[in-house]
Amino acid sequence: MSQEQREMVHRLLRDAPFDLGGDPAVQRPLLEAMLTAQPLPDDVRLSDGDLGGVPVVFINVADGEPRGVIVHLHGGGFAMGSARGSAGLVSMLARKTGMMAVAIDYRLSPEQPYPAALHDATAAYQALLEQFGDTVPIAVSGESAGGNLAIELLISGLANRLSMPAAAVLFSPVTDLTVGGSSYNTNSDRDPNITAAAIRTRAADYLGKTGTAANDPLVSPIFADLTGLPPLLIQAGSHEVLLDDAITFAARAAAHDVAVTLDITPGVPHVFQGFAAILDEGEQALTRAAAFLQAHTAQRVVGAHGQSHPDSAGVGQSLRAASTTAV
Amino acid sequence: MSQEQREMVHRLLRDAPFDLGGDPAVQRPLLEAMLTAQPLPDDVRLSDGDLGGVPVVFINVADGEPRGVIVHLHGGGFAMGSARGSAGLVSMLARKTGMMAVAIDYRLSPEQPYPAALHDATAAYQALLEQFGDTVPIAVSGESAGGNLAIELLISGLANRLSMPAAAVLFSPVTDLTVGGSSYNTNSDRDPNITAAAIRTRAADYLGKTGTAANDPLVSPIFADLTGLPPLLIQAGSHEVLLDDAITFAARAAAHDVAVTLDITPGVPHVFQGFAAILDEGEQALTRAAAFLQAHTAQRVVGAHGQSHPDSAGVGQSLRAASTTAV
Repeated sequence: MSQEQREMVHRLLRDAPFDLGGDPAVQRPLLEAMLTAQPLPDDVRLSDGDLGGVPVVFINVADGEPRGVIVHLHGGGFAMGSARGSAGLVSMLARKTGMMAVAIDYRLSPEQPYPAALHDATAAYQALLEQFGDTVPIAVSGESAGGNLAIELLISGLANRLSMPAAAVLFSPVTDLTVGGSSYNTNSDRDPNITAAAIRTRAADYLGKTGTAANDPLVSPIFADLTGLPPLLIQAGSHEVLLDDAITFAARAAAHDVAVTLDITPGVPHVFQGFAAILDEGEQALTRAAAFLQAHTAQRVVGAHGQSHPDSAGVGQSLRAASTTAV
Repeated sequence: MSQEQREMVHRLLRDAPFDLGGDPAVQRPLLEAMLTAQPLPDDVRLSDGDLGGVPVVFINVADGEPRGVIVHLHGGGFAMGSARGSAGLVSMLARKTGMMAVAIDYRLSPEQPYPAALHDATAAYQALLEQFGDTVPIAVSGESAGGNLAIELLISGLANRLSMPAAAVLFSPVTDLTVGGSSYNTNSDRDPNITAAAIRTRAADYLGKTGTAANDPLVSPIFADLTGLPPLLIQAGSHEVLLDDAITFAARAAAHDVAVTLDITPGVPHVFQGFAAILDEGEQALTRAAAFLQAHTAQRVVGAHGQSHPDSAGVGQSLRAASTTAV
C-alpha cells in the first residue's frame, strides 16, 4: 500500500474540473470524461439493452458462461453518471467474480426526482427476476448515490415481496440525505472532492419539489427498517466525508439482524475502488468484494438446489439476446 | 445457516450453570468445564511453556512448519477462563490459518487487577518479538475480555515502540468498561448469557481498588487514540449486549485511519465462533477470520522480504523447544 499512490489519487481528484455540486448540464460530461478516461480492457464487452422497459448496459468480461449476474446502480449524486460510466468499476468486479453485470441507466434528477430512479431500478431488477427466477445467482451493487439506490431497491423490494439477491456490495454509499454524519466535519479537509454542500445540493434535487422528507426511509436508509435484507458488504475510505454514512448504516443493519460487513480502508477517498488500476488498496478492496459475492452466491445455490456449483447455464446467452446494440 | 442450530446454542448458553457476574471462585471451574466439555481433536497438541516469565500454552495443529504465530488472549471477564480453556476456539483458527498459537495465561482479577493482565500480555508478546523479530508473521487474537486485552496490548505496545503484529482478530471484544453501549438495553432479552450487571461486576474487579477510571484508554479502547494500529477484524453477533462495543470500537478505528473490518453475524450470541462444531455461522466466521489473517500475514512477509511465501522456518521447532510440558 503506497503512500505515493494515495497522494496521486488525492491530487487527481482534488484537481479534476468535476464538481459534484455544480450544474448538472455542465458537470455530466465532465464526470463522464473522468470515468471513461481510461479505456476499458479489450476483453470487456458492453451492449445496450433494456430490462422492464429501463435502459441497461450488459457488461461481459469472461468468454465462458457467467456464474451469476451483478445488478449495478451507478453513482453521481442521483443527477449524473451513467451505466457506461460505471463500466470500468463494474467490469473489474465482474472479472474477479466470474459474473456478468447489468448496469441500470435509471432516470436522473433534477429532471426526474425521487422516486423515478428507484422505480427504474426496481423495474429492471424485477424483469431480471422474472426472466431467471432462482436459477441464477443474482447480486446487487452500487457506488455512492448508486449505493443508496441499491439499498433502497432491496428495502422497497422486500415490501413488495420481491426475491432478495444473494448479497449486495455497497461502495461508499450515500445513506443519509439529512447530511447528518459527523465525518462531514471531521473529514472536510481530508476528502479531496466531496463536500457537505455538494451532497445537500444533490439531495435537494433528488427530493424534488414534491416535498419528500430527507429522512424518509426510502431515500435515507439509515432511517429504514432493514430487517430481512440479504448479506451486505459496505466499503468506504477513512478520509471520506461519507465515512459516517457507511458506519451508521452498518450499525443499523447489525441492530436489525442483517449479516453485515463494514470494510474501511485507511487514507483513501470516495469510491477508491475505481482507481484499482493505480491504487493497490482499490485492487485489494475489489478482491475482497469479489470473495464476498462468490461466497454468498455459491452458498445460495447450494442452499436452493443442493448442488455445489451455481447453475447459471444460459444466463449469458439469454441476456445477450436481450441486448439491442452490441458495441 | 440453521435456525435450529442457533436455538440450540441459545438454550445451551441460557441453561448453563455458568454466571459471568458470579463469584470467581465458584464460576472459574464452571466456565472451565463448559469450555472443555468437547474434547479437542486428536491432532491438536498443547504444551505448557513460558514467554517473558508469563505462563503460556503452545497450541499446534498441523504437523508441518507453521506459517506464523497467533498470540491469543482468552476471555472470561478478566477474572476467569484460561489459555487451555480457549484452546478449542484457538486451535480451530490455527488449523484454518496453518499457523500455531500461543495462548497467554495472564493474571486474573480480582486478585490481580489492572494492569497485571496487560503487563503479562505485553511481556509474553515482547518475548516472542525478541525471539523471532520480523522473521515470522505474528498475529494477535482475543475473545471477549481477551479482545479488550488484545487491543490494549497493541495500544500500549505502540506507545512503547513495540513492533505491531501483521493483523489482529477480535471476537466479541469488550471495549467499554463504562458499560455505555445501547445494545445492553436493546439486546437484553436476546442475549442468553451476558448482562450489563455481569460486565459491571467484572469491570469493577478489573479496575480494582486503585481507582483506574472505567473510561481510561488503557482499559476502554473506545476512548483511546487508535492511530497506528494494524489491520483489525472485529466479529460479533447481532444478539449480543456487547454489539455496540464492537460497532463503536470499529467506528473509532475507522476515524483514526486504521484498516478495520466489522463483521456482524445475525442471530448469534457472544463468541459464537466457539460453537463452530455445531453452528454453521461459527464455522463460517472462523473461515473468514482465517482468510483475513492469511491475507495480512502473507502481505506482510512479501512487503518485508520481497518473497511470496512467509519465511517462518524454525518457529515451530523453537517454540516447541521453549515448551516445558507436552500434553
